[in-house]
Amino acid sequence: MIIKNETLKSMKKHLTDTDINNLERFPKVNLMNSATGYKSANLIGTKNPKGVTNLAVFNSVCHLGSSPALIHFTLRPHTVARHTYENILETKYFTINQINTSIVGQAHYTAASFNANVSEFEATGLVEEYKNDFYAPYVQQSAIQIGCEYVNTYEIKENGCLLVIGAIKHLYFEDHIQAKDGFLNLEDGQTVCINGLDQYAVPKPLARFEYARPNEDIKEKTI
Amino acid sequence: MIIKNETLKSMKKHLTDTDINNLERFPKVNLMNSATGYKSANLIGTKNPKGVTNLAVFNSVCHLGSSPALIHFTLRPHTVARHTYENILETKYFTINQINTSIVGQAHYTAASFNANVSEFEATGLVEEYKNDFYAPYVQQSAIQIGCEYVNTYEIKENGCLLVIGAIKHLYFEDHIQAKDGFLNLEDGQTVCINGLDQYAVPKPLARFEYARPNEDIKEKTI
Repeated sequence: MIIKNETLKSMKKHLTDTDINNLERFPKVNLMNSATGYKSANLIGTKNPKGVTNLAVFNSVCHLGSSPALIHFTLRPHTVARHTYENILETKYFTINQINTSIVGQAHYTAASFNANVSEFEATGLVEEYKNDFYAPYVQQSAIQIGCEYVNTYEIKENGCLLVIGAIKHLYFEDHIQAKDGFLNLEDGQTVCINGLDQYAVPKPLARFEYARPNEDIKEKTI
Repeated sequence: MIIKNETLKSMKKHLTDTDINNLERFPKVNLMNSATGYKSANLIGTKNPKGVTNLAVFNSVCHLGSSPALIHFTLRPHTVARHTYENILETKYFTINQINTSIVGQAHYTAASFNANVSEFEATGLVEEYKNDFYAPYVQQSAIQIGCEYVNTYEIKENGCLLVIGAIKHLYFEDHIQAKDGFLNLEDGQTVCINGLDQYAVPKPLARFEYARPNEDIKEKTI
């Protein structure tokens, strides 16, 4: 280990909570949205009771549990995602569709403030797909699609954000994507991830590791 | 558009919630953890009141708000992350450290079930860093580090998971990583992301897009 090098590497810019608070709006939002790392890139599809479909990009969809299969995502109060949430509350169903390299531009375009009567599917050219009598529309171009039933909302009292819980009712994926141990090779679905609010990136696998045990070297998985 | 091709692409494997429930434990967990896409890759650092440090890999750290700067992450009840959570409750402070390509093996090794008296820093060779009188240890090798104060826990009654909220008190990053508009070029920090429970991947930027507006073409950002 070259000490001089390490010292250089550890010379970092330092911001306190007060410094962050004093930043202007956009630099602050850009910085804060990058600080915790890459996020998942998904489109949430809904349809209102009048039949108008909605599609919105989300970077906060996370796995919550496998038994039962649950997911969560966050919504800001009174902002871009209002139609999505209203549709979910009124109809109880929504879809999660992974964004891939072929549709990143269209996916990002769903974030524009379209009129409530305009479907983001129409506006972007992404194709609605309906199957197995599920109410909400899937994005046909997504290699991995999830049909969810609304379960619950937790209001985060610290800033008014909402944590929405959904139960997975249907899961679709292209067969060739799945490894023998159940894992989905997202690279084969050309899935992207998001940094901040507006950067899309394509992950290249570095390694899969075996289950870690004390006093055993970490081994790469070969599946 | 070649219809035949599109038809082939849309022929997907379909699992219902019952099918998923009936899967064996590991295929189910592997599948469910991949289904929602890539996740952030972070190490959470804590120190118990006796001075024993702890370090654990988390794929659920998410941005929650910029004003004030808040993050959240999830914990399973009574599982691997118990030491982390107990330390946070007892001492009120923790750090979030982005995992990069140089330390993925060491980061994954923190998931082994070490005895409570063993520090994962010692076991893995990751280096504790203390600065500005902050109680919890940072990972010196991380290019982006966050010092957090514990704020609140929401119990997700559907499965007993815990959603932990933290307030960002300190943010450190290597200066060269930041773009003019505040955004952090995570590629320059060699930050990785996680697929499922055990795959680490390196994102390569595809595009940054300008703010989306109805009836305007999506434009790439040049910063």
